[in-house]
Amino acid sequence: MTDTPDLAAPVAVVILAAGKGTRMMSATHKVLHKIAGKPMIEHLLDQVDQIGAERTVVVVGEGREQVEARLAGRVSFAVQDRQLGTGHAVMQAKDALAGFTGDVLVMFGDVPFIRADTMLAMLKRLHGEDAPAAVVLGFKPWDARQYGRVITEGDTIVKMVEYKDATDEERDCPLCNSGVMAVRGDVLFALLGQVGNNNAQGEFYLPDVVNVAIRAEVPCAVLVTPDPDEVTGINSREELAAAESHWQHGRRAKAMAQGATLVAPETVFFSHDTVLGKDVLVEPNVVFGPGVTVADNVTIRAFSHLEGATLAEGVEIGPYARLRPGAVLETGAKVGNFVEVKNATLGEGAKANHLSYIGDATVGARANIGAGTITCNYDGYFKHRTEIGAGAFIGSNSALIAPVSIGRDAIVAAGSAVSRDVADGELRMVRAEQLVKPGWADRFHDAMKKKKEAAKK
Amino acid sequence: MTDTPDLAAPVAVVILAAGKGTRMMSATHKVLHKIAGKPMIEHLLDQVDQIGAERTVVVVGEGREQVEARLAGRVSFAVQDRQLGTGHAVMQAKDALAGFTGDVLVMFGDVPFIRADTMLAMLKRLHGEDAPAAVVLGFKPWDARQYGRVITEGDTIVKMVEYKDATDEERDCPLCNSGVMAVRGDVLFALLGQVGNNNAQGEFYLPDVVNVAIRAEVPCAVLVTPDPDEVTGINSREELAAAESHWQHGRRAKAMAQGATLVAPETVFFSHDTVLGKDVLVEPNVVFGPGVTVADNVTIRAFSHLEGATLAEGVEIGPYARLRPGAVLETGAKVGNFVEVKNATLGEGAKANHLSYIGDATVGARANIGAGTITCNYDGYFKHRTEIGAGAFIGSNSALIAPVSIGRDAIVAAGSAVSRDVADGELRMVRAEQLVKPGWADRFHDAMKKKKEAAKK
Amino acid sequence: MTDTPDLAAPVAVVILAAGKGTRMMSATHKVLHKIAGKPMIEHLLDQVDQIGAERTVVVVGEGREQVEARLAGRVSFAVQDRQLGTGHAVMQAKDALAGFTGDVLVMFGDVPFIRADTMLAMLKRLHGEDAPAAVVLGFKPWDARQYGRVITEGDTIVKMVEYKDATDEERDCPLCNSGVMAVRGDVLFALLGQVGNNNAQGEFYLPDVVNVAIRAEVPCAVLVTPDPDEVTGINSREELAAAESHWQHGRRAKAMAQGATLVAPETVFFSHDTVLGKDVLVEPNVVFGPGVTVADNVTIRAFSHLEGATLAEGVEIGPYARLRPGAVLETGAKVGNFVEVKNATLGEGAKANHLSYIGDATVGARANIGAGTITCNYDGYFKHRTEIGAGAFIGSNSALIAPVSIGRDAIVAAGSAVSRDVADGELRMVRAEQLVKPGWADRFHDAMKKKKEAAKK
Repeated sequence: MTDTPDLAAPVAVVILAAGKGTRMMSATHKVLHKIAGKPMIEHLLDQVDQIGAERTVVVVGEGREQVEARLAGRVSFAVQDRQLGTGHAVMQAKDALAGFTGDVLVMFGDVPFIRADTMLAMLKRLHGEDAPAAVVLGFKPWDARQYGRVITEGDTIVKMVEYKDATDEERDCPLCNSGVMAVRGDVLFALLGQVGNNNAQGEFYLPDVVNVAIRAEVPCAVLVTPDPDEVTGINSREELAAAESHWQHGRRAKAMAQGATLVAPETVFFSHDTVLGKDVLVEPNVVFGPGVTVADNVTIRAFSHLEGATLAEGVEIGPYARLRPGAVLETGAKVGNFVEVKNATLGEGAKANHLSYIGDATVGARANIGAGTITCNYDGYFKHRTEIGAGAFIGSNSALIAPVSIGRDAIVAAGSAVSRDVADGELRMVRAEQLVKPGWADRFHDAMKKKKEAAKK
Repeated sequence: MTDTPDLAAPVAVVILAAGKGTRMMSATHKVLHKIAGKPMIEHLLDQVDQIGAERTVVVVGEGREQVEARLAGRVSFAVQDRQLGTGHAVMQAKDALAGFTGDVLVMFGDVPFIRADTMLAMLKRLHGEDAPAAVVLGFKPWDARQYGRVITEGDTIVKMVEYKDATDEERDCPLCNSGVMAVRGDVLFALLGQVGNNNAQGEFYLPDVVNVAIRAEVPCAVLVTPDPDEVTGINSREELAAAESHWQHGRRAKAMAQGATLVAPETVFFSHDTVLGKDVLVEPNVVFGPGVTVADNVTIRAFSHLEGATLAEGVEIGPYARLRPGAVLETGAKVGNFVEVKNATLGEGAKANHLSYIGDATVGARANIGAGTITCNYDGYFKHRTEIGAGAFIGSNSALIAPVSIGRDAIVAAGSAVSRDVADGELRMVRAEQLVKPGWADRFHDAMKKKKEAAKK
Repeated sequence: MTDTPDLAAPVAVVILAAGKGTRMMSATHKVLHKIAGKPMIEHLLDQVDQIGAERTVVVVGEGREQVEARLAGRVSFAVQDRQLGTGHAVMQAKDALAGFTGDVLVMFGDVPFIRADTMLAMLKRLHGEDAPAAVVLGFKPWDARQYGRVITEGDTIVKMVEYKDATDEERDCPLCNSGVMAVRGDVLFALLGQVGNNNAQGEFYLPDVVNVAIRAEVPCAVLVTPDPDEVTGINSREELAAAESHWQHGRRAKAMAQGATLVAPETVFFSHDTVLGKDVLVEPNVVFGPGVTVADNVTIRAFSHLEGATLAEGVEIGPYARLRPGAVLETGAKVGNFVEVKNATLGEGAKANHLSYIGDATVGARANIGAGTITCNYDGYFKHRTEIGAGAFIGSNSALIAPVSIGRDAIVAAGSAVSRDVADGELRMVRAEQLVKPGWADRFHDAMKKKKEAAKK
């Protein structure tokens, strides 16, 4: 995509999102279900952003509060109170488009993968040969099933026909209607006004706009996407999972093409915004949540889970590393197995290799965090920070009770609960006396074995 | 399935399970290998339970002790000492069926996916048009390979033919014999008595019952399953894995249809008895062991492992949560990364977010279990309980030495090993003095660096 | 493979590895990218080892230092400074083959799956009927795409033709050229000398050797592999992932055929050298790194990660067990969730079930390592060992500060940081006094709630 697409006219986008989504079996509105961690309708809106639309109107109905809350400020809304068909839905956007005379692109909140390139191609065609009133996005699926068909001569539409109304010959036509359509704004509502609801469902269908135009001898054209997956619609959780899978498949291919090794690509899950460098090695079973940036030459071992984390060059994490938002690993830092890092920076070459929780902390360069170290960052009411100096050595199984500061090159003895600051170069040891009871364990074993025997009887 | 199927006659089920299962390469009997955590033969028996069979006889042979031990009390057994073919195997059930005059359904312990609906349809056909002596379950596989063929006119069987004895024309017939058969009990053993073993293997084949009947001008019918996967047989670990995959695929689809989001369905593994609510979110890589019940609006994050756990509405677990048998999470409770919960209840809104072991415990509502907390429930001989009151705050890296009780709203200071009860609203701190040695660490580093240098030489 | 293949003549192998591998987008040389943890070229070399080649020459170019460093001592090298085609590359091996008069097998470092059996079959054909000068390895892919074609009569080659130079009729030929070739050493360089570079790329193509021979009326033959996957070439990370997937698929099938249950084979990742016993159960999501040996009747639960580990009969690990190099689990030992074992032996029946780090340690038979136990093996400069006696009981949340020894049947109380040896049968407790502050927590909660309220305003 170029940053400034070359449009022949201003564009308004109307996105239909009033459908109930009954088949999702969910209290969450269908278009807010997520793909790669982002609501499906936002995948579409991100592409819309790239074409520089002047207005974007989302037509909402049942569950509108959810959609409005999520998209407030990004789009405007129109309301379709009753489900009288897609044509009726677009008609509800009339007020929101008052005064607008450019091109109108009608899309669907549950058809999230339409690309900006495709949108632009449709808009361009609208101003091309024969100046069609509308351009329909067609596709040729592997299995055409019961999709409506687009009957054409060249790219000129002869007829739009619903599958159930189609003749056998029409059904043999492989070109299907995606529903997505670009219409000249100056005729859109006039055409819509002539669409009737004399059909089995008693609904006003948007595709009939084309038939109305054709009857008036106004030409309409089809643009065929070469990628049928682009027009995938999502009506059930199974289709949601398929869309996720499709998205992940594409993202994995892109990661590999850009120079990451995914040992088992099918087991790596990216987020919509993951940034990955070159010569990154990703072992099997890694999950990227939102907000992760990975520099070059990073190794992410198996079973790692990352969210909101920044990994500098040469970092190595995992297996079983869990990086949470605000985790910043500087050059060559290491985070090992069963270690959780949250809102914390590990300096250059710092290491936390085993069974630790590093939260709300700054760890200096080359510091070594022993196994089982816990930063006690929460007192039940407030979070506090732990500062660990460069070259410090935190002995295993220590608790650092924040707010607390450990100095440069300081040493905390294993098993210490440190509640007061430790100065540079200091040793801090918090450890009770070694109480020795010779023979006690032998006597205990004898007593317990007898007790256990007795309990069996 | 209805609870009281409408049967025309009493039913006895004979399940053949005498085969050695050599190709499994296992000391475990083939029919006891598990699918979704349940022995394959029990998948079949669960369906048999639904048709209300009067008797169920399992024919066992080598390894019979294992099968008898597992199924004792649920079925009766007959023994086939020598492997003389499927006809011979059924003959061994004669004593167990003494006095029984209803219909006999013959199935296989290693063909575990036959549905109750299919069984009932076969039994119904047995009492339908022409009153056939036997009804064979046929199927049309994608690749018919070397299955025996069922040659028919309408649904009347003309001939059963082994692949190796079939003519080319017969081999072109796509209808194959699953081996599963319903036979009228009053003729079964009479027909079986006429089956010979004049064939390459010298075995008595059950399908020959049909040929014997046809020669006697007694009609036999075929019932064709629309789902070839239903008659999948399992003879190797690879086929076992394929059956598991098939089962999981179906279970995932059901979960999604019922309103769960599986971000990556192919990475979620269910147990035979998993119960899942609506608007449950399951992230990638989650394993359900037996005995898990999940209410509505629960979030199960990536890499979680659940067995014998009950999750109430609004619970959130993982990533990397491990729930073991007896884990009960009440409304809104949270269990975070690297936390193991066993035989323990977490009250409403209670949290154990990091690196903890909560075993044999009761955690009160809203209690907060700090990172690295361990309930020390085992003394090497007996298990003891830990009781934690509502609103209590357990500081990080604490050890609660059971039996012990922590009161309501009590606080345990970080790093404490608590061996005596803590009262309501009390603070308990078990911590040695902070021993401070200024400059010690700097001197240590100097000494060790020299030692390390020396060691290199 | 037999150990002493029956060769008609000495064999030299020339492996071309001078290609840049630009499409890999990597600083690492293409042939050093790994499949199943082993550089792809070494997969090929392991097969070469089985045919008893007298000399193996790897032709290197850009990035040669990396290849030479990795393979030094195992092969000799020739250098191709300029990329003038595969024929030119082989020519560079002339010096390295000086004085050699046997058969020459030419293969590619990025075509790693050629089997020793196939190599031997090609060499055998070289001494068979008509004594061909060269034997080309042909294959019949599902999709022939733009591969060069091998036009034949019987197994005699009529013509080698690049796709772009082929007639339509030649393109209809399904037999493609893999590039792999066996050539009689006495004619190889003479033939190569006659190969020209009069083509679009201006390169010297190795397959032209065949055309030169044919023009001189010296017969050449094709050997067709029945397995097109054998000649898979790797030019991108996506193809690398596909090769890994292919390898894993084969290895999983082998594991199952030998009597392991893989519940979800597609989620188990083996290393090139994994050794697996019979009746091993591997749950979903298990990763084997290099150097793992697993005896019979071992259970490896979900989400486990093993490297350099040896598991004796009856061992059970996981879920979430992490075994690192030097982990040795003796008969019946158990390692549970979130436990890391490194360079440590667990004796017969020893258990470390929860959240522990066992490094540089010896754990005696039947010893019980409590949850949260850490062996503090590192002082920032040196590693030290922990010795734990048979039957010892290490209380939860303990730190064992190495070097340290815990005696037979000794008990370490929960929460102890043990810095001095514990004798046989002794109890060691390192625990401060229980400081009790009645009502303190209630007052704290009141104060903090007020503070929190104030902070909101």
